[in-house]
Amino acid sequence: MNKKKLTLLGSTGSIGQNTLHIVSAKPELFDIVYLSAGKNADLLIEQAKRFRPKAVAIADESQFLNVENELKSVGIEVLSGREGIYELSERADVDMVVNAIVGVGGLIPSYRAISAGKDIALSNKESLVMAGDLINHLLAEKNAKLFPIDSEHSAVWQCLQGEKPETVRRIILTGSGGPFRELPLEKFSSITPESALKHPTWNMGRKITIDSASLMNKGLEIIEARWLFDLRPEQIDVVIHPQSIIHSMVEFIDGSVKAQLGVPDMKLPIQYALNFPERLPLKWENLDFGKISHLTFEPLDIQKFPAVRLAYETLKRGGTASAILNVVNELAVYAFLDRRIGFTDIPDLVEKALGALPIVDHPTISDVLQTVESGREFFERQIYSKR
Amino acid sequence: MNKKKLTLLGSTGSIGQNTLHIVSAKPELFDIVYLSAGKNADLLIEQAKRFRPKAVAIADESQFLNVENELKSVGIEVLSGREGIYELSERADVDMVVNAIVGVGGLIPSYRAISAGKDIALSNKESLVMAGDLINHLLAEKNAKLFPIDSEHSAVWQCLQGEKPETVRRIILTGSGGPFRELPLEKFSSITPESALKHPTWNMGRKITIDSASLMNKGLEIIEARWLFDLRPEQIDVVIHPQSIIHSMVEFIDGSVKAQLGVPDMKLPIQYALNFPERLPLKWENLDFGKISHLTFEPLDIQKFPAVRLAYETLKRGGTASAILNVVNELAVYAFLDRRIGFTDIPDLVEKALGALPIVDHPTISDVLQTVESGREFFERQIYSKR
Repeated sequence: MNKKKLTLLGSTGSIGQNTLHIVSAKPELFDIVYLSAGKNADLLIEQAKRFRPKAVAIADESQFLNVENELKSVGIEVLSGREGIYELSERADVDMVVNAIVGVGGLIPSYRAISAGKDIALSNKESLVMAGDLINHLLAEKNAKLFPIDSEHSAVWQCLQGEKPETVRRIILTGSGGPFRELPLEKFSSITPESALKHPTWNMGRKITIDSASLMNKGLEIIEARWLFDLRPEQIDVVIHPQSIIHSMVEFIDGSVKAQLGVPDMKLPIQYALNFPERLPLKWENLDFGKISHLTFEPLDIQKFPAVRLAYETLKRGGTASAILNVVNELAVYAFLDRRIGFTDIPDLVEKALGALPIVDHPTISDVLQTVESGREFFERQIYSKR
Repeated sequence: MNKKKLTLLGSTGSIGQNTLHIVSAKPELFDIVYLSAGKNADLLIEQAKRFRPKAVAIADESQFLNVENELKSVGIEVLSGREGIYELSERADVDMVVNAIVGVGGLIPSYRAISAGKDIALSNKESLVMAGDLINHLLAEKNAKLFPIDSEHSAVWQCLQGEKPETVRRIILTGSGGPFRELPLEKFSSITPESALKHPTWNMGRKITIDSASLMNKGLEIIEARWLFDLRPEQIDVVIHPQSIIHSMVEFIDGSVKAQLGVPDMKLPIQYALNFPERLPLKWENLDFGKISHLTFEPLDIQKFPAVRLAYETLKRGGTASAILNVVNELAVYAFLDRRIGFTDIPDLVEKALGALPIVDHPTISDVLQTVESGREFFERQIYSKR
């Protein structure tokens, strides 16, 4: 069997590191050909020395000389900056591009990889949130496949195996509810970055942890699911399930519901995407029903978490509305982490942007990129006016 | 589309009646060609007048003239006795035989139907418990298919769709735990038929309700699963799940678990078996996660419920051991309902029989029938000696 050749974008983040764990556990199956990272040059250098890719890219140009100095001598090409990442994304001598970049910056790499006809394992949900329709058309045109790495979407995808798409009545995305599930709404204004970074069940990066606290992550997942599984917004439901054991569910037209369960560990959805349709006999921690005494469910509190309502609204509006939501949310999350705005300002700014910015129907990729720029400008004006 | 022509054996029982509900709801899909019942002549007559089969059979010969008197005038042939049921089972002008007979009496009808090359939807788990290996060989020889109607096995079967059999690590059968889940062991000797007939979640016939109270039903399901899904005994686990919402689960080699969930209603597994591989858009009650606040799990208490241990032991022993367990259990259940023995005598008698009776390896169908007779004789001797 030939090894599957991989480009791994975002190798130093949580998903990137877990992907390399899997590659290490199954060296007979996978070969790392390219790696990219944002800023963490030290870890990228270490990974490159271990996995020996042909080339790496570091987004942070100030780190280029450092990385090149370490890797050139061992015969590894080093690229840098956004353009370096984009170039790696479309190199053709791989079988699959794993896009584990966090945020808006993952869109162009997804687009370039698919344009080059590569299959893509997508952790960067923002690609589909911002340009789902465009990406679906591109996948069809290039006859490329896209496999989700998100645990919820992997669960839905697993539950859909062997089932006909037209028999799906709805999907039910589960969410832990985040650290503020039980906090009264009147205390939301005093939420600090420290408290928001404590996620009850999943160990993730900072951006997605804040999105999980605001439930914007669930909103982004709703939008992602719409494009991944070709569903109408009303076919996508959310239920709060604090234990994060049921990763999501599908209800069929006969009332039967299938669920996928597992320990909260991203290695499972990663390896499922890397090796689909084969399941890998890897031994991470397994579910133990002797330890799981109970699983609970509760409705989402839309008053406390307006992000989910905003996500549905952008889906119904269509065009670049979801892209606006995504870019303004991302900027707001980092502003919150920098203590420039409060926690409840995050959805407020998104809602303001959706009311203020032009929405382009049937956007091209340029329209989406223009939306990113408009979103940034809008955000900066808002922050400036706040001071 | 041609209607699927059905023989329904055991039409007046709980599964039989639910099957006719589905046929009524989808008359464009199904046609009832033959019906059989045990003793309930009035209901059989009513069903026959409504569904207009070519023929019916009534096992209780004393009711033959009554049934014939009512149905002959409307052109419906009437058969009676065991032989009448057997004859209907193998009539060739149908597409599928639904075997909803309860207990040992369902074995020969299954065997005859498959021998005639018919696909079979099997609610009579005793067929597989008593002669699983034989039936599997016969299915292969006749190129016939067997679809389970048990909710647990339907759940496993649904979870296996689109998955490769070799990727199954284990299955996890769920059980409500029955009405005596929380009763201390020392009170088991005072259990009455009335208290045992109150099942917390499922509405079923008397025999299966008592089996659910002793957890012998779970034992029979373990044996059934071994033959349905070609599993080793150690690949079959049981977990107590009192709400009966998760109907069973499959764990794969990568640690991913799939579960099938639904309201506790046998119409779902029946319609899935009747119309596989198509799901029918029938609107029974659906799961509502607004109402399901929590799902709980606990280990099985093997001290209180030795039936499950006995089932595993017969699987490991092989041959006619499971047939002995089944026949003696069945007799013991009816003796308990008649207040001739106590609740804890049920597994005790099964265990005694397994120690006392000869076990035939690689049995023929005659060997299995001989085992039924030996089991009856053993049981009668035991009961006689108890008086």
